[in-house]
Amino acid sequence: MFVLVNLKAYPCDSEALAATIRDVSATSGVDVAVAPQTAHLAPVADTGAKTWGQHVSPVEHGSHTGSTLAEALADAGAVGTLVNHSEKRLRLADIDAAIRAAERAGLRTVVCANNPEQVAAVAALGPDAVAVEPPALIGTGTPVSKADPDVVRDAVEAAAAVDESVDVYCGAGISTGEDVVAAAELGASGVLLASGVAKADDPRAALEDLVAPLV
Amino acid sequence: MFVLVNLKAYPCDSEALAATIRDVSATSGVDVAVAPQTAHLAPVADTGAKTWGQHVSPVEHGSHTGSTLAEALADAGAVGTLVNHSEKRLRLADIDAAIRAAERAGLRTVVCANNPEQVAAVAALGPDAVAVEPPALIGTGTPVSKADPDVVRDAVEAAAAVDESVDVYCGAGISTGEDVVAAAELGASGVLLASGVAKADDPRAALEDLVAPLV
Amino acid sequence: MFVLVNLKAYPCDSEALAATIRDVSATSGVDVAVAPQTAHLAPVADTGAKTWGQHVSPVEHGSHTGSTLAEALADAGAVGTLVNHSEKRLRLADIDAAIRAAERAGLRTVVCANNPEQVAAVAALGPDAVAVEPPALIGTGTPVSKADPDVVRDAVEAAAAVDESVDVYCGAGISTGEDVVAAAELGASGVLLASGVAKADDPRAALEDLVAPLV
Amino acid sequence: MFVLVNLKAYPCDSEALAATIRDVSATSGVDVAVAPQTAHLAPVADTGAKTWGQHVSPVEHGSHTGSTLAEALADAGAVGTLVNHSEKRLRLADIDAAIRAAERAGLRTVVCANNPEQVAAVAALGPDAVAVEPPALIGTGTPVSKADPDVVRDAVEAAAAVDESVDVYCGAGISTGEDVVAAAELGASGVLLASGVAKADDPRAALEDLVAPLV
Repeated sequence: MFVLVNLKAYPCDSEALAATIRDVSATSGVDVAVAPQTAHLAPVADTGAKTWGQHVSPVEHGSHTGSTLAEALADAGAVGTLVNHSEKRLRLADIDAAIRAAERAGLRTVVCANNPEQVAAVAALGPDAVAVEPPALIGTGTPVSKADPDVVRDAVEAAAAVDESVDVYCGAGISTGEDVVAAAELGASGVLLASGVAKADDPRAALEDLVAPLV
Repeated sequence: MFVLVNLKAYPCDSEALAATIRDVSATSGVDVAVAPQTAHLAPVADTGAKTWGQHVSPVEHGSHTGSTLAEALADAGAVGTLVNHSEKRLRLADIDAAIRAAERAGLRTVVCANNPEQVAAVAALGPDAVAVEPPALIGTGTPVSKADPDVVRDAVEAAAAVDESVDVYCGAGISTGEDVVAAAELGASGVLLASGVAKADDPRAALEDLVAPLV
Repeated sequence: MFVLVNLKAYPCDSEALAATIRDVSATSGVDVAVAPQTAHLAPVADTGAKTWGQHVSPVEHGSHTGSTLAEALADAGAVGTLVNHSEKRLRLADIDAAIRAAERAGLRTVVCANNPEQVAAVAALGPDAVAVEPPALIGTGTPVSKADPDVVRDAVEAAAAVDESVDVYCGAGISTGEDVVAAAELGASGVLLASGVAKADDPRAALEDLVAPLV
Repeated sequence: MFVLVNLKAYPCDSEALAATIRDVSATSGVDVAVAPQTAHLAPVADTGAKTWGQHVSPVEHGSHTGSTLAEALADAGAVGTLVNHSEKRLRLADIDAAIRAAERAGLRTVVCANNPEQVAAVAALGPDAVAVEPPALIGTGTPVSKADPDVVRDAVEAAAAVDESVDVYCGAGISTGEDVVAAAELGASGVLLASGVAKADDPRAALEDLVAPLV
């Protein structure tokens, strides 16, 4: 299982969280990565944590002021990036171009989608993975794997029907090790989470609990 | 073959063009429809021409000022609508919701896409048809069926692999009957065109030439 | 006072409402207009009610599929249009271009804004009027004139400091004649409202109550 | 005069350019700053060059994946930020909120605008400076100060009429010291430039030429 901790624009100490993530990943052997604000990428990657972008722009080098250039993410130490997160929705053609941009810079891609139909759509564009996040569950603390297990099963099936090589992650309401196990049993090979770790009183304990069943 | 004439925001007499389209369609037996500005929809539909929307919003009834509500298109006489035209690109989740909105109101949907990968993506969302329009050919007068026949063949194949029931239309650079025949031979079951008819000196002659090989 | 009834994407009978608005306006002598869905514009204008657009695109004639061309609104019978409504926010450069487009087609413009600073900003672009709508009050049924009278006074002052000829309207939470009077006393020369009339059990009674103190 | 060198998404060595900018600024005594990709901000600021963001999001701390949080820019060492660049246009309400976000984080703001009317509009929102960039001149190598000096004079006048404390910068086609002098003579107190330095064969020579008349 792959675990991606999205720090969003939370008022957290991203370098301290990254160091914790690096340590828990090393100790547990579970693949855990962190997605900080783009401006925090370089110092976060310098901690040695596996670092991801939260977004990448569908552009090449050129006159694109304010863009998030894939090559700049890679320069700063990112190894992958989210695309089309529910808080940063992209046009279809831009999802396609953003995946191409990330590939060009050697970044892995996880493209977010609302439901199994959109998972299939996104899988057709050839990302490394898709994450299914029913909008109604985002930020609820209710894991999709519990509230609506069929949506995860259907997403896994829908992605496989289009492209067997695309992984499916589970991305709404995950906060405990139990949620991660449930996601895995439904066919997901990774989870996205955010507040469950980034806003926890004790992020290390939260993360250790999360990966415990995977060790 | 289905022929959809998109009037965009051209300075044309949309009711006169609609009457011509109605007449040529009736005389030739070829299914020709017209997509005018939304504000022109009601008078255009009153001509008896088969009338389509140029866009539909991904919304239901509610507080959506400035939206293009599917039910309002239908009230005005539309029987179908374009979605995600290259001049009105939508976010992936909004393409999904726009198709659902159109279905709800009984409108047929043609979703535009840039390339075979995006055609497959869009087909996964279950529209009635997809239209492949390579951006490099739009408005060039060079038909995709001639400039890059493989893109049409690949689009037909990509859509069929995802959903056999989704039609594929050809939508860039079409202006003559020969172009329509070429598109049909590549597997397309319809064409989108715009300036070739809407900006022609003699729209009736242009349209008659276009449908001649289909009669 | 000018009264603009925005029908948004409400599930209402826009032609019947327009006829009511026409009648109440004629009987009371108060200037009342209706802003329906763009697809409903032509039949609504045919009732004889003063008809407005809910939105206008910042474009000229050309390749703008899915746009709301100012000239098409005017063709359909519109005499004015909302711009930058809180449910259809535009980029600054597009507000400028949308006002220019509306002027070109002979449409009056009311540009919406959140607060007195944005009212001043918008007034600098030379619309006919600006409408101040604090986001926190939209749809609450609490009129801005009561909840935060200073915001209306400040908006009137801010607009006047930039351009004396720009009218200021009040646009959040207005539903009764009392609200309209309060808005007028604060310096507003018009009101925008929506659900207060469009979703009323008896729209005619609601409208008559609204204009009663103005007669 | 303030000189801001925007690196856009150019394929340049941003740290080397930043070091050059730092050195030329120190030697000449002219205030020169650099705006790199957000992912490059931290290492660029570490060179000691005065560093700016290319964009800031209109948000506070919270669930804003993919945003450019003002506080994150400041953490990374930025002291100011562009807002509403012609390649990253924002909605009016978002320009307002982006200025507020930058202020909150102690960042200076330069808001870009197309013409004197938009300059006045933007000045009403209280940024530190506005930059006038006629779209027709961007990237042409023809300085606005030469091609259309009235637009700069009118912008300076328009901003002053709204708020005397807002500086006006000149931002299209600037590449030589002569252009900078012309801008200053028209009333501008700063210039934005990009390719003139970032894509120069010898950026140091280009920058030295640029600041020479100001020493």
